[in-house]
Amino acid sequence: MNIIEIIEKKRDGFVLSKEEIEYFIEAYCDGSIAEYQASALLMAIYFNSLNKEELAVFTQAMIASGRTYNFSGYDGVFVDKHSTGGVGDKTTLVLAPILAVCGCKVAKMSGRGLSFTGGTLDKLESIPGLKVEVSEADFMKQVEEIGCAVIGQTNDMVYADKKLYALRDVTGTVSSIPLIASSVMSKKIAAGSEVILLDVKCGDGAFMNNKEDAIELAQRMIEIGESVGRKVAAEITSMNDVLGTSVGNSLEVLEAIETLKGNYDEDFYELCVHSSCTILTMAGICKDEAEAREKVVACIKDGSALAKLKEMIEHQHGNGEVINNYDLLSISNKTVDVIADVEGYLNTVHVKEIGLLSCALGAGRMQIEDKIDHGVGIVLHKKRYDYIKKGDVLCTLYVNDSFKDSLIEDMRSCLVIEDHEIEKEPLIYKVL
Amino acid sequence: MNIIEIIEKKRDGFVLSKEEIEYFIEAYCDGSIAEYQASALLMAIYFNSLNKEELAVFTQAMIASGRTYNFSGYDGVFVDKHSTGGVGDKTTLVLAPILAVCGCKVAKMSGRGLSFTGGTLDKLESIPGLKVEVSEADFMKQVEEIGCAVIGQTNDMVYADKKLYALRDVTGTVSSIPLIASSVMSKKIAAGSEVILLDVKCGDGAFMNNKEDAIELAQRMIEIGESVGRKVAAEITSMNDVLGTSVGNSLEVLEAIETLKGNYDEDFYELCVHSSCTILTMAGICKDEAEAREKVVACIKDGSALAKLKEMIEHQHGNGEVINNYDLLSISNKTVDVIADVEGYLNTVHVKEIGLLSCALGAGRMQIEDKIDHGVGIVLHKKRYDYIKKGDVLCTLYVNDSFKDSLIEDMRSCLVIEDHEIEKEPLIYKVL
Repeated sequence: MNIIEIIEKKRDGFVLSKEEIEYFIEAYCDGSIAEYQASALLMAIYFNSLNKEELAVFTQAMIASGRTYNFSGYDGVFVDKHSTGGVGDKTTLVLAPILAVCGCKVAKMSGRGLSFTGGTLDKLESIPGLKVEVSEADFMKQVEEIGCAVIGQTNDMVYADKKLYALRDVTGTVSSIPLIASSVMSKKIAAGSEVILLDVKCGDGAFMNNKEDAIELAQRMIEIGESVGRKVAAEITSMNDVLGTSVGNSLEVLEAIETLKGNYDEDFYELCVHSSCTILTMAGICKDEAEAREKVVACIKDGSALAKLKEMIEHQHGNGEVINNYDLLSISNKTVDVIADVEGYLNTVHVKEIGLLSCALGAGRMQIEDKIDHGVGIVLHKKRYDYIKKGDVLCTLYVNDSFKDSLIEDMRSCLVIEDHEIEKEPLIYKVL
Repeated sequence: MNIIEIIEKKRDGFVLSKEEIEYFIEAYCDGSIAEYQASALLMAIYFNSLNKEELAVFTQAMIASGRTYNFSGYDGVFVDKHSTGGVGDKTTLVLAPILAVCGCKVAKMSGRGLSFTGGTLDKLESIPGLKVEVSEADFMKQVEEIGCAVIGQTNDMVYADKKLYALRDVTGTVSSIPLIASSVMSKKIAAGSEVILLDVKCGDGAFMNNKEDAIELAQRMIEIGESVGRKVAAEITSMNDVLGTSVGNSLEVLEAIETLKGNYDEDFYELCVHSSCTILTMAGICKDEAEAREKVVACIKDGSALAKLKEMIEHQHGNGEVINNYDLLSISNKTVDVIADVEGYLNTVHVKEIGLLSCALGAGRMQIEDKIDHGVGIVLHKKRYDYIKKGDVLCTLYVNDSFKDSLIEDMRSCLVIEDHEIEKEPLIYKVL
């Protein structure tokens, strides 16, 4: 095997063999292929893509580079859900307890936020005492006992993705659909669940800005999952508005709890219910969407999903009282309202900018090593398409001492008010 | 300046600014841009090319990374000639003395052979005593006194090309036309000559296999030369047959001397005369091709070009007696004839394979550090299009003790004899 010939083959648009792809991943991981050769191949893949068979082999080789989980010895159907990253996405906090109550096993590994997107681990850590780094034994014990656990991805999974992603990040090869698909799916497959629901975010506040790319990414990920016999579905959902009403870690935990109490933003609630129903149907727990919906709605109404969230928090050493006492979330008591200075329809929300602004407030990180402030963030009182009157409070910023007044104007310019009404787009564009 | 943004810009098909290109070359040379970022950009350039302005800036930035020569303080028109590399190309050994006799200044820096292509320096070094590494002062003194000198490229020229070429060589980015053009022209321009003739080889035994690519490469090189005010012309010439009749260092020196004595292969002679005339006309020494041809033919006929070659050899510490005594060339006395086993027309010559076979005999190197044997090589008694009778000696291999009999069959299979005649193609396809 000769890496130069492999690079040239992909550069010239030919299909790489199983042996060539496996050689590349293995030799790159053990250091015998240089970074500069790997980056040249990644750029050639950027231009000439990977076909279905290549991508399946590529992803399987990545998976084989690290630790894999297998739940075949355990009772129940293990399910997982992955969002490609958005602003205000606290879905996992609602989904995990619902699915556990409805009879699934949710052994979920989540990530941290970076740049404009938030991360579930950071949100969970705003609950006092809660631990996201637990031993595998404790993790599995918790899933067996209560049906759900959400922890940090262990360091020994998919070594190839860590190495490749770090390289892609500095060589302009992040935004390749097959490379994104293999990165996501290698981790999801290695994490062991049989049923996987992908939420491919699309729009201003997502990595995929247009529907065609989002659909293609979803299709490629489904294709990979099916190549290893997993049940995979994907929702393409809009990120042209913040998901729900809050952005920021403690604020999002609060919104998740309120949602489970029945006080919710319609769009966010509908996404949680829809996702839960899709998973329950795929898992074979419910025979159809209607049966699933009944079950999901019931467990919210009767408080059992909320009780499950409390149980999960407590199993992970968090203070379960947070469910009833939001003071425990240490949300900042220093707030600034952003007031509408014009009248009209809130037609456009610059979601990515809002994500970045929440970083600027301290809620997120621009670099992996940055510290975050769990108590700051944004609560939106108005959502996209709303009619706004002059003087309306558009949103409230929860800030700390580093706050600068200029952020008020920055926030106002994220919410574009116009005099004409526009047609509403659905939150869920498509289900694949 | 951010290299990731530069990579992404080129990847997405945009035009890089002067500042971005200059930053890339400078920061790559000083090590602040990593090899893996440079290789990703080179691959993006492979796919999306560089336009005229980008390529001019790219090449000028490369030139600025090292030492440049300038002959404005010297009398005469300095001329240079570059071949993109072929098999049996001993043109420089004939051209340099002719041009010097006809009134040009030839301060030429040449290279070594690698893989199937030979190099002028290796050929010169088969002359006993001859030195290709001389001080700049001696080099210029020689050019002033006798009109020509052929030495090795000094190590301090175009640092960026050395670094980039080494990277391209191992990352599948060699065969990019703008990158080849900038590599060649950066060295030619840095070497200082005002008039440059490019011989772009095309065909089986060349890096450019088809005419379209060869013409494009020639055009891009001319465009670069003109961007810095040099007079540049290009010949597109066939490499579908060995140039002349010999391959191998001493053997090629012998052929060059014989050519200057009037005993020549027609095609090779015509290329030497044509190239000389083009240069003399561009240099303004002759008013047209006809006048130039008269002058060139005369200096071969009267022996003055041969005398000039002797003078050049002696100035470079070589034994000028080689002109009359070929024993001094130490050509191997162990020879093997390759005999035709069929009758017909020699329609196809696998030139690249012949180049590789001459390497296998010891005449060339596959790796830069390989040692070569100046005395071995191949003399072709039959050329493309010749009618061959069974039993004819097709060629003679000059071999050393490492010779393996299997090479005879390998050589025979390089010369494809068929029963039908084919149309001849010209040696010089096109002049630009």
